[in-house]
Amino acid sequence: MAEKKLVEAITSMNEDFAQWYTDVVKKAELIDYSNVKGCMVIKPAGYALWENIQKELDRRFKETGVENVYMPMFIPESLLQKEKDHVEGFAPEVAWVTHGGLNPLQERMCVRPTSETLFCDFYKGDIHSYRDLPKVYNQWCSVVRWEKETRPFLRSREFLWQEGHTAHATEEEAVARTEQMLNVYADFCSEVLAIPVVKGRKTDKEKFAGAEATYTIEALMHDGKALQSGTSHNFGTGFAEAFGIQYTDKENKLQYVHQTSWGVSTRIIGAIIMVHGDDSGLVLPPMIAPTQVMVVPILQKKEGVLEKADEIKNKLIASGFRVKVDDSDKSPGFKFAEQEMRGIPVRVEIGPKDIENGTCIICRRDNGEKIEVKIDELSAKISELLPTIQKDMLERAKKHLEEHTYVAKDKEEFKKVFSEKSGFVKAMWCGCQECEEKIKEEMSVTSRCMPFEQENISDECVYCGKPATKMVYWGRAY
Amino acid sequence: MAEKKLVEAITSMNEDFAQWYTDVVKKAELIDYSNVKGCMVIKPAGYALWENIQKELDRRFKETGVENVYMPMFIPESLLQKEKDHVEGFAPEVAWVTHGGLNPLQERMCVRPTSETLFCDFYKGDIHSYRDLPKVYNQWCSVVRWEKETRPFLRSREFLWQEGHTAHATEEEAVARTEQMLNVYADFCSEVLAIPVVKGRKTDKEKFAGAEATYTIEALMHDGKALQSGTSHNFGTGFAEAFGIQYTDKENKLQYVHQTSWGVSTRIIGAIIMVHGDDSGLVLPPMIAPTQVMVVPILQKKEGVLEKADEIKNKLIASGFRVKVDDSDKSPGFKFAEQEMRGIPVRVEIGPKDIENGTCIICRRDNGEKIEVKIDELSAKISELLPTIQKDMLERAKKHLEEHTYVAKDKEEFKKVFSEKSGFVKAMWCGCQECEEKIKEEMSVTSRCMPFEQENISDECVYCGKPATKMVYWGRAY
Repeated sequence: MAEKKLVEAITSMNEDFAQWYTDVVKKAELIDYSNVKGCMVIKPAGYALWENIQKELDRRFKETGVENVYMPMFIPESLLQKEKDHVEGFAPEVAWVTHGGLNPLQERMCVRPTSETLFCDFYKGDIHSYRDLPKVYNQWCSVVRWEKETRPFLRSREFLWQEGHTAHATEEEAVARTEQMLNVYADFCSEVLAIPVVKGRKTDKEKFAGAEATYTIEALMHDGKALQSGTSHNFGTGFAEAFGIQYTDKENKLQYVHQTSWGVSTRIIGAIIMVHGDDSGLVLPPMIAPTQVMVVPILQKKEGVLEKADEIKNKLIASGFRVKVDDSDKSPGFKFAEQEMRGIPVRVEIGPKDIENGTCIICRRDNGEKIEVKIDELSAKISELLPTIQKDMLERAKKHLEEHTYVAKDKEEFKKVFSEKSGFVKAMWCGCQECEEKIKEEMSVTSRCMPFEQENISDECVYCGKPATKMVYWGRAY
Repeated sequence: MAEKKLVEAITSMNEDFAQWYTDVVKKAELIDYSNVKGCMVIKPAGYALWENIQKELDRRFKETGVENVYMPMFIPESLLQKEKDHVEGFAPEVAWVTHGGLNPLQERMCVRPTSETLFCDFYKGDIHSYRDLPKVYNQWCSVVRWEKETRPFLRSREFLWQEGHTAHATEEEAVARTEQMLNVYADFCSEVLAIPVVKGRKTDKEKFAGAEATYTIEALMHDGKALQSGTSHNFGTGFAEAFGIQYTDKENKLQYVHQTSWGVSTRIIGAIIMVHGDDSGLVLPPMIAPTQVMVVPILQKKEGVLEKADEIKNKLIASGFRVKVDDSDKSPGFKFAEQEMRGIPVRVEIGPKDIENGTCIICRRDNGEKIEVKIDELSAKISELLPTIQKDMLERAKKHLEEHTYVAKDKEEFKKVFSEKSGFVKAMWCGCQECEEKIKEEMSVTSRCMPFEQENISDECVYCGKPATKMVYWGRAY
């Protein structure tokens, strides 16, 4: 039984979630491991997902006035060192280039782990007057961080991302841009990926190296662990002062620019897998699925079956859907299993009997529901079904998030919930880093964010009992 | 005079073509030099060109069945060394990573100068049976070659490109793919960039390190120098044998795969500049221009002028054109000069008098022609004008190519034409590398390609007088 083999090869989620994840990325052919340690090969099915993510995000960026550019991939060591916090955060995990061709370099350079320093160096020469502002630039590229332990999409030595870097005349404008881009990310996750997120601010301990404030969107995976899915940083004038990026304002006075940066990476593909996937494999939201409908012919050697399958495909493509026919010489059961493994949202089954009756079977990937539909009404049905699937997937993910968000009022409750449950825990915090560190030490959980939507759960810090200043989402994170 | 300043800053083409080129890339804001030696910053106007090139090429690739992937950017030294010719060609010009974080690497790795070795290593594990073939993969990425002398777009230590890498069951299929992709490139150049090219095969001396045959498209720049604008390589089974990439055929026998690779880089932006540009700056073919029409309001402070300009913009955008209004506080003359410098194909001038008359002035960037048009007929006129400009630009470039392609029958003629003229010279060649090398030594010209369209100019090699085997295009190259 070929179809059996394909399915049996996946570990069940509840048995071993980490192994299930690895099985899915491999079996759905999203990635392959490479002989370059800690780096992955992104295969066509994985890269097509990234292309769709890029297309959607890029369009949304450009609607807000973003322009794309490209900076060098190397950072001379002296440039990396210009902002103190930044170099401390990144220097231990960069890859160093020391030789060009046969000769040693006069100054070694790292492969960018992120490009703040390069953008600052560029802005220093490019910004002179208030007329040159704002700069709202972004680049799509790969970055390198020398991680010790790696996992496909979630943590690898090289990953793909976009990094936006902006410069503004005023603090207000920079703050507004930081929030605007966080909202772009959150809306994208919810509308396109069907992933609900919690929006909030990172604590000082968890913020980006060199930032004044870091904002984040946090998503909850199926196993109850959190995944930081996008960040937006307000730098204030910190980088501008370190790099000397000044402009002449309307009163002819020299001012430092206010900067932001924001990024989303291929990590988000990990979120798609771990929020929506099930024991049959990947489940893709229709809006991001490279193939939305797979037509599977039954008894395809019978006259007219393949022709009908192609006819259906062409009709659906003409209606604007992304459709394929699986006309390989595998058995229908094997094809079903493959389509399910790859997370294709809808399967259309068409065989000789269906053709006789002028009907076909459509099957939803997200809930397994099967419906008989008249072939003539198929396009209309699919137009209706895809948005329904998209909506239902978001609803399910929202429900999961709600059901796995807990509240703890005191230390005991806090420990109890994390020992019994897996998810977010909302709890009050006094604002001091010591409590945050002790919580991490004792419970192996970290502060995920101080959400924009604050609640007053109690008046006291969940750890030390002193007056609370913030409600925090805590959790175990990828 | 602000507009004067902008224009005066460019060197005239005939005075100093190299300086003209540098002035244009800088003044049209395509690139900026960076503090990373030999690397450039691609600014919004330059990157938008690359995005349009990517979009057009990627669509054409996918129509031929290409799938995009992403390979690691690092190549372990031992992997680079697997194919003998390949390592000899590239090792002297790669950047070496020797440290990850604080620790030296066990094996140093280079930043990819090209990814044949990575694709081969991947294919070795991914290809088993004839069912796994063909593989028609491509990636969009940046590569690094440690060049000593660099020039924006034409030669830099890091550049952006696409590299296609395919594996096939048969030699015929590999040969067909090599030719198909060369044709995709040639058609793209002609149809989208308005650049005519000569298609042909490289001599063994000029072919890619590790290739059995390299095919090329060669374009002629305004100064008569050649620019290799895209290449397509047939590897035969050379890499497959070095890496052990075998598949089981239908008769259950082990066979080596046949491979190809093909690439186009940001270098092609250099060709756009040097084929079409003039003393006022860049001239962009409408199909690739990020902005196709710039609306310039005249006396814009007068009531209704800016409103009318915006109305025109919106109408043209609704008709599917890429349009902007220059409503900055610069003078019209300055705006004209800027629009010309940036190569925007059409300018629409609209002032109070025009509005009164219900007309506007449109001005072609490529030939300076001005026409008065009724505002109501503007969209129709632009629909007609943009393809006309595109066509005229291709015609002019073709004429330039023809007028600067010469013929030489013997050594004396050959030397004479290269001492007096600048362009391609068609001449016969015996096929021996010694003649090719001596020609390079004595005349500082190289063989550009053995064109597919062969002519019999004479029966003897232009250098040694022995029987000729091929007609070759010779020229000075970028």
